Amino acid sequence: MAASAGPEIERLISLLSKLPGLGPRSARRSALALLKKREALLLPLADAMSQAAARVKTCGTCGALDTQDPCAVCSDPARDTSLICVVEEVGALWAMERAGAFRGRYHVLGGLLSALDGVGPDALRIGQLVGRVSGGEVKEVVLALPATVDGQTTAHYLADALAGTGVAVTMLARGVPVGGELDWLDDGTIAQAMRARRPA
Amino acid sequence: MAASAGPEIERLISLLSKLPGLGPRSARRSALALLKKREALLLPLADAMSQAAARVKTCGTCGALDTQDPCAVCSDPARDTSLICVVEEVGALWAMERAGAFRGRYHVLGGLLSALDGVGPDALRIGQLVGRVSGGEVKEVVLALPATVDGQTTAHYLADALAGTGVAVTMLARGVPVGGELDWLDDGTIAQAMRARRPA
Ligand SMILES: [Zn+2]
Ligand SMILES: [Zn+2]
Repeated sequence: MAASAGPEIERLISLLSKLPGLGPRSARRSALALLKKREALLLPLADAMSQAAARVKTCGTCGALDTQDPCAVCSDPARDTSLICVVEEVGALWAMERAGAFRGRYHVLGGLLSALDGVGPDALRIGQLVGRVSGGEVKEVVLALPATVDGQTTAHYLADALAGTGVAVTMLARGVPVGGELDWLDDGTIAQAMRARRPA
Repeated sequence: MAASAGPEIERLISLLSKLPGLGPRSARRSALALLKKREALLLPLADAMSQAAARVKTCGTCGALDTQDPCAVCSDPARDTSLICVVEEVGALWAMERAGAFRGRYHVLGGLLSALDGVGPDALRIGQLVGRVSGGEVKEVVLALPATVDGQTTAHYLADALAGTGVAVTMLARGVPVGGELDWLDDGTIAQAMRARRPA
């Protein structure tokens, strides 16, 4: 950055460039857009971020993000408590909700098993999942994991870990394209894959 | 957005999606990244935005953005006060500074003349430019405007408006690609175009 922009603007640009999808150039463009729209964008966004930082927490039950714990899904009495959909991250949970194809509850793993990245079972919320399933109320666990090597490794691991509990373990149908991240799929594909889910 | 994400997160995503270069999907990814990196990214960015909103202002002389008025460039005694470089927007000023090819001062027009968009001379900071030039200290005005129809229309208009003042009016050499926005050029191209500038 040019020294002439001043340390406040440089700090803003530097932090914006850490957002996924924003490189240094688009971070500069974003900073300018923010400074031009001070009342309409900059102040509201600063406030929304402060509010989110202060109020959004992780649901102790499913791992979702919400201002309440348990989250809105976990505390919704209209949700089918016999169904748990396992997702990698909160973004995939949001994608499932947008698709509107699932009326049970969720379990956010917080990642995938990965030999390459050294992510083992203890790094994920697998113990909590087995604990929830062991309560007796759950009849089916739907694994909504990406059709990648790590996604499938994780699915097999979970199917083994849940084998002793007596619940049905299913996975999304292969409507999910190979290598596809759930968060990037259109809602129709997700809904179709949910309807056609099959035993894992 | 899914209702399950909660109004705070939905508001954050909605505001993030208004940043240039961030669509709804990357806004969701950004919101998630922010919530995951609360201490390292979310809180610092909220603070940087509040600070910028409170402290950054428009330089009354040149139209740049800075925490001081006059801005750092306008108040730098090492800058050549006989040279003014006219740019469309602050982003172009930053690009010029990054290129390090200009040691005079700037004048930010705040846009370009555009018959199509109905932008006339009164909507731009043209009167202020003529006023600055009429002070007698300025010897050369370099028009660093994009090589687009509107950019060239504006350059001709400014050359006419400054014709009576006796200053030399030059423009960047055609190193600037046709249709190219300054803000997206590499520093070397900008530096070369500045060195090879010619009369307008
Ligand atoms: Zn929950
Ligand atoms: Zn200035």
